[in-house]
Amino acid sequence: MIDIAVIGSGPAGLSAAINARVRNKNVVIFGNKIDTSALFRAKKVDNHLGFFDINGKEMFDIFLRHIQKFEIPIKTGRVTQILPLKDFFAINFENEIFNAKTIVLAVGSKKSKKLDGEEKFIGSGVSYCATCDGMFYKNKSVVVIADNLEAESDVKFLSEICKDVKYIPSYQVNSNFSQNVEILNFKPKKILGDKNVEAVETSEKEIPCNGVFILQEFILPSNIIFGLEMQNNFVKIDRACKTNLSGIFAAGDCSGWPLQLSKAIGEGQIAAQSAARFIDSK
Amino acid sequence: MIDIAVIGSGPAGLSAAINARVRNKNVVIFGNKIDTSALFRAKKVDNHLGFFDINGKEMFDIFLRHIQKFEIPIKTGRVTQILPLKDFFAINFENEIFNAKTIVLAVGSKKSKKLDGEEKFIGSGVSYCATCDGMFYKNKSVVVIADNLEAESDVKFLSEICKDVKYIPSYQVNSNFSQNVEILNFKPKKILGDKNVEAVETSEKEIPCNGVFILQEFILPSNIIFGLEMQNNFVKIDRACKTNLSGIFAAGDCSGWPLQLSKAIGEGQIAAQSAARFIDSK
Repeated sequence: MIDIAVIGSGPAGLSAAINARVRNKNVVIFGNKIDTSALFRAKKVDNHLGFFDINGKEMFDIFLRHIQKFEIPIKTGRVTQILPLKDFFAINFENEIFNAKTIVLAVGSKKSKKLDGEEKFIGSGVSYCATCDGMFYKNKSVVVIADNLEAESDVKFLSEICKDVKYIPSYQVNSNFSQNVEILNFKPKKILGDKNVEAVETSEKEIPCNGVFILQEFILPSNIIFGLEMQNNFVKIDRACKTNLSGIFAAGDCSGWPLQLSKAIGEGQIAAQSAARFIDSK
Repeated sequence: MIDIAVIGSGPAGLSAAINARVRNKNVVIFGNKIDTSALFRAKKVDNHLGFFDINGKEMFDIFLRHIQKFEIPIKTGRVTQILPLKDFFAINFENEIFNAKTIVLAVGSKKSKKLDGEEKFIGSGVSYCATCDGMFYKNKSVVVIADNLEAESDVKFLSEICKDVKYIPSYQVNSNFSQNVEILNFKPKKILGDKNVEAVETSEKEIPCNGVFILQEFILPSNIIFGLEMQNNFVKIDRACKTNLSGIFAAGDCSGWPLQLSKAIGEGQIAAQSAARFIDSK
């Protein structure tokens, strides 16, 4: 059983993990590849006290040495669901289940807005996990919208199950796909349908389909944790980084303005301290 | 006119100053000597992401290089009062007045509790500033309670004005004083009196006096800013580091739990951003 599961490997998540270890809790970080962080790509960072004449990659290298020194495991991949059970949480990470006493959400913030209709069709045609829901679309037509390379293995997986896959990537595609995959460099606009998804409206034309997979690096936290209270697309927390759900804490960009480094690292510390207190009070 | 006056030269204050400069605001730090910070004396710090195998002094040295690089002035001394005026604040710093559009309080937290009676006699015998109020006690008897070397020049100043000075230091005294100063290594317990201060009760005996100067490194923010809302001896702030007073922000230990480094640096950033927004909105 993990004491503190940190979801996210950006500065807030790394800070939370360090502080969990200082509090003598066992901790695992579940996150995207480090090089997908906006900070990682920053040419120059000078607004975080103690760091100057440095770029984002160099800063991350220092952060990761700290993580390595503390021997904190980082699992790279996607968390698609977190289920609150009686005394712990079950985390679906790449279709493997991990159990944790507490959760620190440090998933960053969504760069792109939700599509029109996305919310409406969650569970009736809109999915955020190809390996979880792919089988529902056996021999059917699906659209995949993605912003990252990792999604290409999901497209391949779906192409083996589904009749056809229309792939709408917002980045430069890197793989060769089978014949039933069509790459469309359109801009997705809206998800259409009555009770279930029937089509995706794009900048060019309407694409009929039975399901839409939205595979973004970032998943809105309330889409993976049922009942998590949000405020303007950010996780609502108090000054102790508590969310509305007992045992779940949040830190960094996912909790809102300002979306900046020192604030993220500070909240990572607070969230870990709050999580440790929560465990100790049991 | 200073855009952002930062009160306090610990990590929260330094972070606020860096972020004020990044936002192109002019900023002045008013603070105690750096080496009085608890962090400065820490033998080992490893819970702030990116810093490990380092002691407090080494960390401060890095922070101060950042401050120097940004050419941010630090004024060393004590702020005894901040007055909100029409569109700005007047800051009494060592009896010199500075004007600022906004204030970021980053004064740290009080290590010792208030004395019994301290609150009751503020303005009728209890003072936090020898040079401000000393003349009220000309040819009278005063008690000085202090926790730091800096207070010794205040004791000397008072010994020139007052009939006698009983000095109760909580540290190792370093100066020679005139004949009318008596050093008492007692523990102060309570301030006694009816309408005005009449005596200080200590671990050993009662000391009759007309006034008590409490010269601690730390001054409770609500003692220098009238009407500042506190909560359990901490400045009450929201998640944007706003206090109840428009234009006054707070960050770091003075705003409460957890009293830790990353949290302080994070709030310093938030407070500076909020102060910059406040100025820009005018």
